[in-house]
Amino acid sequence: MPLSGIRVLDLTRIISGPYCTALLADLGAEVLKVESPTSGDPVREQGVIRDGISWYFANYNRNKKSVAIDLYGAEGKALLARLIPSCDVIVENFRPGVMEKMGFGPERLKALRPDIIHCSINGFGDTGPYRDRPAFDFVAQAMSGFMSLNGAEDDPPLRAGPPISDLVAGLHGALGIAAALLRRGRTGQGDSISVSLLNSMISMLSFHASNFLASGVVPARSGNDHGIVAPYGLFRTSNGQVAIAPSNDSVYHKLLDATGLTHVRELPEFSTNAQRMERRREIKEIIEARTQTESSEYWIRRLNEFGVPCGPVLGLAEVFEDPQVKDQDMVITVNQPGHGEVRMLGFPIKFSEAPSSCRLPAPELGADTQSVLASIGVGAQELERLQQAGVISTPCINA
Amino acid sequence: MPLSGIRVLDLTRIISGPYCTALLADLGAEVLKVESPTSGDPVREQGVIRDGISWYFANYNRNKKSVAIDLYGAEGKALLARLIPSCDVIVENFRPGVMEKMGFGPERLKALRPDIIHCSINGFGDTGPYRDRPAFDFVAQAMSGFMSLNGAEDDPPLRAGPPISDLVAGLHGALGIAAALLRRGRTGQGDSISVSLLNSMISMLSFHASNFLASGVVPARSGNDHGIVAPYGLFRTSNGQVAIAPSNDSVYHKLLDATGLTHVRELPEFSTNAQRMERRREIKEIIEARTQTESSEYWIRRLNEFGVPCGPVLGLAEVFEDPQVKDQDMVITVNQPGHGEVRMLGFPIKFSEAPSSCRLPAPELGADTQSVLASIGVGAQELERLQQAGVISTPCINA
Repeated sequence: MPLSGIRVLDLTRIISGPYCTALLADLGAEVLKVESPTSGDPVREQGVIRDGISWYFANYNRNKKSVAIDLYGAEGKALLARLIPSCDVIVENFRPGVMEKMGFGPERLKALRPDIIHCSINGFGDTGPYRDRPAFDFVAQAMSGFMSLNGAEDDPPLRAGPPISDLVAGLHGALGIAAALLRRGRTGQGDSISVSLLNSMISMLSFHASNFLASGVVPARSGNDHGIVAPYGLFRTSNGQVAIAPSNDSVYHKLLDATGLTHVRELPEFSTNAQRMERRREIKEIIEARTQTESSEYWIRRLNEFGVPCGPVLGLAEVFEDPQVKDQDMVITVNQPGHGEVRMLGFPIKFSEAPSSCRLPAPELGADTQSVLASIGVGAQELERLQQAGVISTPCINA
Repeated sequence: MPLSGIRVLDLTRIISGPYCTALLADLGAEVLKVESPTSGDPVREQGVIRDGISWYFANYNRNKKSVAIDLYGAEGKALLARLIPSCDVIVENFRPGVMEKMGFGPERLKALRPDIIHCSINGFGDTGPYRDRPAFDFVAQAMSGFMSLNGAEDDPPLRAGPPISDLVAGLHGALGIAAALLRRGRTGQGDSISVSLLNSMISMLSFHASNFLASGVVPARSGNDHGIVAPYGLFRTSNGQVAIAPSNDSVYHKLLDATGLTHVRELPEFSTNAQRMERRREIKEIIEARTQTESSEYWIRRLNEFGVPCGPVLGLAEVFEDPQVKDQDMVITVNQPGHGEVRMLGFPIKFSEAPSSCRLPAPELGADTQSVLASIGVGAQELERLQQAGVISTPCINA
């Protein structure tokens, strides 16, 4: 596995941090998920619970180990300090400054493990006027400008349905950590990485940002239409609608050929993309008059034959039955001891030589406390004392 | 820099691939962008052109070198074969199978460079019934189920404004490459990586996917409301609206305190989140009756003081003037020789020890053809012959 031999101390909860460490775990890292001995990650109780387990929790915490330590008390902090030297990476999604308050500022971390790689996933960044504000996906979507680009022109700004600022921040964290590990391999030095929900969403503004910065023109929301290409969007068929995306003149001509509209090529009012943008509604109506005569399935087959990017708009029930999605193993079934089989999202990064797999189901709270603490020399007697004092929780002693 | 010393052969164009290699370039890799000698990456002509350069192109191609080689002809392919042994990584976003047709299938690549890391960024994956279909961001958003979750409940499924399937696929590619480089460092072995727009978007479905897989219930679109939390969303103020995201009971109570609605805590019909979901409109009206009495600025300050995640919905003009965004350097200014100063997005991954920077402006077409080919032993005479034959393009010889 790409990250075999890398031990990650995971102090995160909810979604952005756990997604980051799930990416590392899926790539082969040993991820030690440190949780509160009493309640654990709140996501254990969130989403649909089936046979006693949250499938949302299972999805984001597969391939991890759970170590239940109470980090509020001095003894728990002392245990953490003993654990850190064995770890290559620490990931946390506290607000900036909380690690310092807990006694684990940069100097302490470096003293405990000189080549440590520390990744903070936060709301707004390590510095600046909003540094201490509480953060949430929705707020990052609002403040980044992302919502201002999402939605129909006459509707209000709209949040994306999935929590993409959490997810993109998690991806940035994982990429930063992998990059820092490469540098450590070459130089022997650790690093400190900070990624934020807000910066992550700003980096998704893409050409909208470039165009605004170059022109000063604030882009309009364009719903399902493309901001600078026409025709484009959803086209009605005899039994539904199809997303069609002819990205340039060459593909536009293929679309005309496929729909039997070759004569439109001769109409001077539609000869350039700029003209078609001006007459967006007209050209759409001309094409839709054709697409409405046949089914979605017909057009998807025919347009693809002609090399025009297109596809159906699928709901989740259809997505997970789609033959391509099945071929790509984008849903996997994991045997979750005590909870039956859990279905979850598969692995989007496909490696030929070192493929990802589910080596471990999502852990019960504290399932690995004993074995992980044993690996740093905590013996049976001390373990029992810590358990009785409420500093740790381990089901092995309870049993 | 984290990826110093890594040479990347970049055969990509448009956005998903160039974004992937831009991430690698920003992390310190030497990226050789191979372009057609006649036209180059089509993005050179796209977006707003200012002082003779596309700022969209400049954003995604900073820190790269441009090597103009015609890969359609035998001589260009022979040059590519000479270049590959000097490269650690190859990234391409052709349709699956095109590299084989060009004579650069897996065996050939491995023969040229035994530990090569090859990353394919494609539409639907390397296998499966849709493997050969043309792809586009909009189509991946439609077919992944993402659009089915985006938009208001009574409106049609909606595409996200920015091209996020391209961007997430680029992120997955970069993460896969960094992970494969770590494995190569340990084992000496290369790998072949495949990421697709469709798989990338499916992996963004997050808890919506888990909940559907666990329950079989297809999630409804919920606009700016949260699917399973209330109150939540956009709240009107005296001069606009504010995004407020109280993610759990504790933050909900802080919201009641901040808005002077402590008595609502005693109302039994609103005591649990499930009850508030049932009476989503009522609880929103109660809170909005308060928020409408003061300005957005007032509420953002006050709610943040109480620890309630909230923020304004900003357009791009406001985003890039925001003091936090400025503090985080999320817009940088790059001196682009011959084209003045270009402003572009900054770096979302902040490293303390090895920060990203703009070491090179976006290259003119073929600007580095001569120096890169010289690095693999192509001498001045051969260079001139290749230039005259139209196999390469280098402004140095033209001048």
